[in-house]
Amino acid sequence: MTTKTPGLTHIDAAQRPAMVDIGDKQVTSRTATARARVRFPPDVAAHLRDEALRVAKGSVIDTAIIAGTLAVKRTHELIPFCHPLPIHGIAFAIDWSDAVTLSIECRVRTEHRTGVEMEALTGASVAALTVYDMCKALSHEIVLMDTRLLAKRGGRRDVGPEAAA
Amino acid sequence: MTTKTPGLTHIDAAQRPAMVDIGDKQVTSRTATARARVRFPPDVAAHLRDEALRVAKGSVIDTAIIAGTLAVKRTHELIPFCHPLPIHGIAFAIDWSDAVTLSIECRVRTEHRTGVEMEALTGASVAALTVYDMCKALSHEIVLMDTRLLAKRGGRRDVGPEAAA
Amino acid sequence: MTTKTPGLTHIDAAQRPAMVDIGDKQVTSRTATARARVRFPPDVAAHLRDEALRVAKGSVIDTAIIAGTLAVKRTHELIPFCHPLPIHGIAFAIDWSDAVTLSIECRVRTEHRTGVEMEALTGASVAALTVYDMCKALSHEIVLMDTRLLAKRGGRRDVGPEAAA
Amino acid sequence: MTTKTPGLTHIDAAQRPAMVDIGDKQVTSRTATARARVRFPPDVAAHLRDEALRVAKGSVIDTAIIAGTLAVKRTHELIPFCHPLPIHGIAFAIDWSDAVTLSIECRVRTEHRTGVEMEALTGASVAALTVYDMCKALSHEIVLMDTRLLAKRGGRRDVGPEAAA
Amino acid sequence: MTTKTPGLTHIDAAQRPAMVDIGDKQVTSRTATARARVRFPPDVAAHLRDEALRVAKGSVIDTAIIAGTLAVKRTHELIPFCHPLPIHGIAFAIDWSDAVTLSIECRVRTEHRTGVEMEALTGASVAALTVYDMCKALSHEIVLMDTRLLAKRGGRRDVGPEAAA
Amino acid sequence: MTTKTPGLTHIDAAQRPAMVDIGDKQVTSRTATARARVRFPPDVAAHLRDEALRVAKGSVIDTAIIAGTLAVKRTHELIPFCHPLPIHGIAFAIDWSDAVTLSIECRVRTEHRTGVEMEALTGASVAALTVYDMCKALSHEIVLMDTRLLAKRGGRRDVGPEAAA
Repeated sequence: MTTKTPGLTHIDAAQRPAMVDIGDKQVTSRTATARARVRFPPDVAAHLRDEALRVAKGSVIDTAIIAGTLAVKRTHELIPFCHPLPIHGIAFAIDWSDAVTLSIECRVRTEHRTGVEMEALTGASVAALTVYDMCKALSHEIVLMDTRLLAKRGGRRDVGPEAAA
Repeated sequence: MTTKTPGLTHIDAAQRPAMVDIGDKQVTSRTATARARVRFPPDVAAHLRDEALRVAKGSVIDTAIIAGTLAVKRTHELIPFCHPLPIHGIAFAIDWSDAVTLSIECRVRTEHRTGVEMEALTGASVAALTVYDMCKALSHEIVLMDTRLLAKRGGRRDVGPEAAA
Repeated sequence: MTTKTPGLTHIDAAQRPAMVDIGDKQVTSRTATARARVRFPPDVAAHLRDEALRVAKGSVIDTAIIAGTLAVKRTHELIPFCHPLPIHGIAFAIDWSDAVTLSIECRVRTEHRTGVEMEALTGASVAALTVYDMCKALSHEIVLMDTRLLAKRGGRRDVGPEAAA
Repeated sequence: MTTKTPGLTHIDAAQRPAMVDIGDKQVTSRTATARARVRFPPDVAAHLRDEALRVAKGSVIDTAIIAGTLAVKRTHELIPFCHPLPIHGIAFAIDWSDAVTLSIECRVRTEHRTGVEMEALTGASVAALTVYDMCKALSHEIVLMDTRLLAKRGGRRDVGPEAAA
Repeated sequence: MTTKTPGLTHIDAAQRPAMVDIGDKQVTSRTATARARVRFPPDVAAHLRDEALRVAKGSVIDTAIIAGTLAVKRTHELIPFCHPLPIHGIAFAIDWSDAVTLSIECRVRTEHRTGVEMEALTGASVAALTVYDMCKALSHEIVLMDTRLLAKRGGRRDVGPEAAA
Repeated sequence: MTTKTPGLTHIDAAQRPAMVDIGDKQVTSRTATARARVRFPPDVAAHLRDEALRVAKGSVIDTAIIAGTLAVKRTHELIPFCHPLPIHGIAFAIDWSDAVTLSIECRVRTEHRTGVEMEALTGASVAALTVYDMCKALSHEIVLMDTRLLAKRGGRRDVGPEAAA
């Protein structure tokens, strides 16, 4: 049992969890974009989209962006084997993708020896959790739908379409 | 525009985001259970479920539980308007719910003036992100499926079936 | 030199810094309100108060409130001898007090064995620093004016007028 | 409403708060110096300046320096849109500037794509809050006077006199 | 393999690590005292004990106390299955126990459903690490000797002599 | 008393604690390895080494590795004058060194202007504290034995044998 588990880079030869050593990787400019989606019950979504709530929604979205931004910066504290790294930019795009679904995209940019997909995923997730928290008095049926990587650039191989990168 | 937005408890009369004051609420024993699901591409799931990886998977799950447990305790640092509160217990149950989907349940218990649904949702989310991180070298097609509240007890009204509470 | 320094409760008999033991104090309902003020150069203030910037200012204020709220909750991590304590409510009121000065009031409520004046002062200070950060591209002449306690209630003696409490 | 707000670099084209992308800025050696001032009521200042308290004051100042140093390193956690960055040096100079006013200067040095003025301002502010905390049993009339940037070097343009840099 | 591991309270029936649920335990007044010891090479110890360094040593000890105090408050962030809990008091006693050994005692007091021995041990350990850091330019032969629990009170059974409690 | 204390690099000319300025040091590849040891009472050690506990021990060790890894990344938050720095790799080796003693080695790798010995010592210490926490229900006689630096490379001078580096 002294061989490394194929593919599981965070499991060492002793079958224990471990950080990957990135000391020999190249410093490159890297980006990653992830998306989370928050689905509301139809009446709650209608309520949130109502004219009268537009200003309030501004504050909901501001809060989500700020929480997500702070979470991106703390990814290495939350995900045990993520490396601390410089963050050059974080951008959120939050909007309705259909009548009941709020789409939250988080794009992160760095220049380092490892990618920032976990940072983008963590930022999108915490922003989505924050929207949930701000709206949970309206319903307990809110669901954080599929959270996934849309694109990454700058690592060994590109992921996702150029439009999303 | 000095009236409180109906239902959005975190928006104050000036339309600014705000913490809810819980000083006049009752201290009660409360629990909340949330579930996140991680869906793998079939070949990746098969690889992870393979006999040879069972011990390694132990470490993946241990890491997810620990990251999720720490995240529960830091929920009030991540979600801006969550209250800091005592945590009496945190329990994770992680297992395959079908051939390609890992189910992560997080149950949190407290005795306080407000519930712990955000804590349970945050714990499940960060555990799921950690599984993603541990397995991402295998695929970038992993998706955090629906994350939702399964049950809560001890607040103004119960949510979800007794079996999940 | 083995006597306690009169009045300096955080210096022990050995002249070393120390946390005050609050184990024998009463649990009471307590509030504290602090105020910071941010003074802008006249042209910068005029720019910020301009009609066209009103929505943007909303985001500046949202960001300050969120940063201040999070800082209140982390006061015991920032100020070495502050006690960790439950926070029942945090409320910010931010508005222009004159043509060039933005006033930031932070009111904190708890039920514990010690007061929350440092929490209120820390919340107001970090909210003011955040306003500075959001506006610093406009000028390096922004000044955080007087930051002070306006009122506290629930401790051995009340401080400040009832209107501010 | 799709144009960027002039001057408010932290507000994006959608009027939402956002981190500035520094990926294309130059890495340069940078310093920033900020100053906070703590003003005491005359009798409290006299008490603190008294011979008998000199050793104790040492501990008050040590505590302020340490709290300020730790706060500099956590600036990006406190101020939502500050970038995490390497810190090469932090130096505090704390002394009486007149009979009732303690001056706290904090100088920060880095080599990065963005400046450290928020780090210097945050360090000075938290050091001042710590002095307040250590002395608050003596008076609730202590005021954190003007906190401001004294000088910065290494960015697009210098700020402040050479003597303060 | 569905039985709980005897004695290992942090391993659940599925052999996974888990937090102990303290919801049904009694709230009692509790203290714990731990001690770490830092042993220096003789010449380094002599240097540190020298008259000329006494004031400097004051700052070394102040720094250790502050770092240890902050670490006590963050124990639940560092040790995965520790519960967040109120801290009523933290007291450090640091002195030479013999010519080359600095003894660091940390006593923690709470009123909660679980004890504070990990808080005391963490406080003593981080204070000792801080002394190491402050003195490491003098030698790399400094050793953190035995770190242990001296006494605890208020739980199911007392540990250690009354004099140490 | 305006001269710098010989050897105590963290004490400035005013006898106050201070961070060392590393701005003029070379960026080099650096490693440090530290070791902590946890000594159990013989019956507890036998219990832990028992066949039936082997899987459980896996979780104890996983938990220690994860806590230690997270602590390495937070060293600059725990030790006041440590610099925040990139971490390229963290590796733990945990095994019995004799019948009653668990040895915990932590090796840290960076490329920066200062070394990572405090990171390695902090990682080993927190991993050891975590083992203590996981096993403390079995005994209060567990002792964290000598924690020390085994080797470092990449600074002004090497420390320790090549085999440990």
